[in-house]
Amino acid sequence: MMRTRAAVAVAAGQPLEVMEVNLDGPRAGEVLVEIKATGLCHTDEFTRSGDDPEGIFPAILGHEGAGVVIEIGEGVTSLEVGDHVIPLYTPECRECDYCLNPKTNLCQKVRATQGQGLLPDGSTRFSMLDGTPIHHYMGCSTFANHTVVPEIALAKVRKDAPFDKICYIGCGVTTGIGAVINTAKVEIGSTAAVFGLGGIGLNVIQGLRLAGADQIIGVDLNDDKEEMARHFGLTDFVNPSKVEGDMVAHLVELSGGGCDYTFDATGNVNVMRTALEAAHKGWGVSIIIGVAPAGAEISTRPFQLVTGRVWRGTAFGGAKGRTDVPKIVDWYMDGKIEIDPMITHKLSLDEINHGFDLMHQGKSIRAVVEF
Amino acid sequence: MMRTRAAVAVAAGQPLEVMEVNLDGPRAGEVLVEIKATGLCHTDEFTRSGDDPEGIFPAILGHEGAGVVIEIGEGVTSLEVGDHVIPLYTPECRECDYCLNPKTNLCQKVRATQGQGLLPDGSTRFSMLDGTPIHHYMGCSTFANHTVVPEIALAKVRKDAPFDKICYIGCGVTTGIGAVINTAKVEIGSTAAVFGLGGIGLNVIQGLRLAGADQIIGVDLNDDKEEMARHFGLTDFVNPSKVEGDMVAHLVELSGGGCDYTFDATGNVNVMRTALEAAHKGWGVSIIIGVAPAGAEISTRPFQLVTGRVWRGTAFGGAKGRTDVPKIVDWYMDGKIEIDPMITHKLSLDEINHGFDLMHQGKSIRAVVEF
Repeated sequence: MMRTRAAVAVAAGQPLEVMEVNLDGPRAGEVLVEIKATGLCHTDEFTRSGDDPEGIFPAILGHEGAGVVIEIGEGVTSLEVGDHVIPLYTPECRECDYCLNPKTNLCQKVRATQGQGLLPDGSTRFSMLDGTPIHHYMGCSTFANHTVVPEIALAKVRKDAPFDKICYIGCGVTTGIGAVINTAKVEIGSTAAVFGLGGIGLNVIQGLRLAGADQIIGVDLNDDKEEMARHFGLTDFVNPSKVEGDMVAHLVELSGGGCDYTFDATGNVNVMRTALEAAHKGWGVSIIIGVAPAGAEISTRPFQLVTGRVWRGTAFGGAKGRTDVPKIVDWYMDGKIEIDPMITHKLSLDEINHGFDLMHQGKSIRAVVEF
Repeated sequence: MMRTRAAVAVAAGQPLEVMEVNLDGPRAGEVLVEIKATGLCHTDEFTRSGDDPEGIFPAILGHEGAGVVIEIGEGVTSLEVGDHVIPLYTPECRECDYCLNPKTNLCQKVRATQGQGLLPDGSTRFSMLDGTPIHHYMGCSTFANHTVVPEIALAKVRKDAPFDKICYIGCGVTTGIGAVINTAKVEIGSTAAVFGLGGIGLNVIQGLRLAGADQIIGVDLNDDKEEMARHFGLTDFVNPSKVEGDMVAHLVELSGGGCDYTFDATGNVNVMRTALEAAHKGWGVSIIIGVAPAGAEISTRPFQLVTGRVWRGTAFGGAKGRTDVPKIVDWYMDGKIEIDPMITHKLSLDEINHGFDLMHQGKSIRAVVEF
């Protein structure tokens, strides 16, 4: 057992508390990782705030990290000490029915325990100094200087990539770009619209640019989002508060008949409906990325689907993490995608609650904690 | 101008009136067809009853026919007198953006006028003996012994195929089989569920058998539907009124985790939701075939889509009619699919209203009027 520093979510709705915690070493199939950097994502805040009905406390949140392998448990063969890794909240066991199916990335191997805030053997490695167990979060718990993660939930990445940038590939970058490439499979020349130009939406936009989309429409209530979005490839900005009349009709006109692909990155079920209905009759595909409030429902007339629109969703951008995440790191290092302008704030672990303030104030795209 | 006999929908909610009507000859791009047989479909009844908010009267309904070319208009090159044809309510011009897109069958070439009950030049060929124009219906108007149809809305089929059977390929057969083959693209070994075992549902079932599905679950409130459905390939029958507890959970268990494909052939939006949610996490696709009442909406939690289910719809089974309908006629003649057991009643034109009675009483799968 070792001690490490972590930001602990002690109870729903409370600020995180930075403290020393106990960390047991890795058991069979597990890996001890020193986290070098972690992003702060809306999903962490969704749980911290108490809005997540499945939130478990106390827990160490964080699921968007990068670090170095410090120790491997019994039977670990794909990683060795010193490897650089990105933890995966969607693991890739390469054995389950889901991993063997090319249509999905939702590996189920450790799902039951992960959802309970536990490692696959049903226990936690973290505890308070008084011995109280602390739950894991999304199988990652990157708001700690050290964490223990199953081998199948670690993507091995090149050693020359900077941790404070590639940590973002652990969630936001892969979710946005993957939604375009893996889930929608956008073709060159497509017309697309992206609803919500935050950290996910910007990555959808650069995914669309990478895929060769001709028209990339961005929709956001905040005009300040336009400039950065244009940097990433946006061609048309729409502020719904300035559109007179029906948003769907406006987007159908702007896109010359409807969008080949639309993406919701807001989590708002009314926006999800607009996104579906702005998709092109006959073949438009609308993809839900955002996480809706508990109990919220999407709805539309079935005629929208019968006339050829397709409604689907994506989780972690449809990426099979151990396979796809190292490629995205390569794309970043090769300059095919950009991350640096989206990392707007760097914080120490002690400043982590300030990072959530920045998120609420709309001042950050991504705040990253460096250890 | 000629005279022919037709069943005219004089006003919403009234029985059809069989009468002599005037029929102008075919203009440029049009074809005069002698209808030999026509099926009675729920969509005809939806309009006749007045439930269809877009219904126009007076009109000659019917969209599931087969017949012989009697005369061709100026410029018609793909058909000649004596050809056997099936009218297409979804035409195939092979020129518009939709026809040139492999993702859709929704040819838009004559859509605007077709939706107004007119031929492409904006007029009708039918009129009452007093000169009052009678509207066309779905571009077909097969409840008449003779009708005029655009060349692009006629599939040329082999001459040895019986009209009283292949008329059903004009709608029900193609819609059901096409939903499986064109829209879902079901793979060999798949697990599927079909909701509603009427004329469309049975064709979905035989489409699934043709596609090599391993498990074909049929869901219907009427136990009497089971026997015929088994004849067409059903492997498991479920009567929701006899299921204790949640239907989705029952179907997920019966299918060993959820269905790869589900099909709604009921038009009931609550059933559509069940069909979606009974689709397999990660990759299940649910397809809406049924026409919902005006204003009805589908809904679900977006989580259902984010975890990999896909919601889509189909019209005319995704078939490009001039290309695909002749192939389906071949399949019937070659014994790859069956139609005969589904043609449960034969009527004369004078008995057409009795055909709708049989439909309401649930006594017919398909009633066919022979001229």
